[in-house]
Amino acid sequence: MRGKLVLGSLVLVLGSGYGVAVFAQAKPDVLVKQRQAAMVLQGKYFGPLAGMASGKVPYNAETVARNAGYLDALNRMPWDGFNENTKDEKSRALPAVFTDGAKFKEAINQSATAVAQLVKVSKGGDEATVKAAINDVNKSCGGCHDNFRAKQ
Amino acid sequence: MRGKLVLGSLVLVLGSGYGVAVFAQAKPDVLVKQRQAAMVLQGKYFGPLAGMASGKVPYNAETVARNAGYLDALNRMPWDGFNENTKDEKSRALPAVFTDGAKFKEAINQSATAVAQLVKVSKGGDEATVKAAINDVNKSCGGCHDNFRAKQ
Repeated sequence: MRGKLVLGSLVLVLGSGYGVAVFAQAKPDVLVKQRQAAMVLQGKYFGPLAGMASGKVPYNAETVARNAGYLDALNRMPWDGFNENTKDEKSRALPAVFTDGAKFKEAINQSATAVAQLVKVSKGGDEATVKAAINDVNKSCGGCHDNFRAKQ
Repeated sequence: MRGKLVLGSLVLVLGSGYGVAVFAQAKPDVLVKQRQAAMVLQGKYFGPLAGMASGKVPYNAETVARNAGYLDALNRMPWDGFNENTKDEKSRALPAVFTDGAKFKEAINQSATAVAQLVKVSKGGDEATVKAAINDVNKSCGGCHDNFRAKQ
């Protein structure tokens, strides 16, 4: 959906008394908020796994499997938020996101592959294999964070 | 995990040069940010479905099934963010969240039931059934938004 979202922002007021933006993804500020929301949650559910892989948090296979499933869903959510119409919004996204789309997409794909592998091995894999998969996810996060995100 | 999160906020600095908060859920402001992030994404993926149910957006069974899966994951994410240590944080959560936990939990459970039903019928159910399930999810959102969230 990247690059082609030119729908207007149609807001429905629903019966229960609150508004839901049906095409909210079209508004640049909303897109940024949504993609950042996905990253916040990726941090929430990846953080403990990173802690396990580095030995700072006790290993818990059940938590890894649960969080891997969440991360699999969450990792599909940020990317359509990097629509070109967001390039002038305030965020840590570097211009390279929009000028080097092929490399950005490659980094996204690597991240998808790493998360898929984590989902797979988290279903009964031994601890060392799971921790290696966690580290690979971590590296794949760096693929974007190192090249496409401004340092804080 | 509600009510028992008293872990410190341990931040790991990982190899790829960014920090991930391993027990970030313990800090009230982070908890609020995370639960709001989940709601932002629930809005992103529920909005188009609400639009379909009300006829304002063309019905697309594939989008419903995909978003239902996302919503199933997302709907598991906000609740541990309503830890009692967040009750003095700035947010739209009403005190009832913390003073009427049983009713809050009931609303959460109703929402889980409605989303599970949507997931189920979105896998090949006919349009009318799917739209009814979307409307039930919408009503279940209201279970919290009407009683536990301040009007804007």
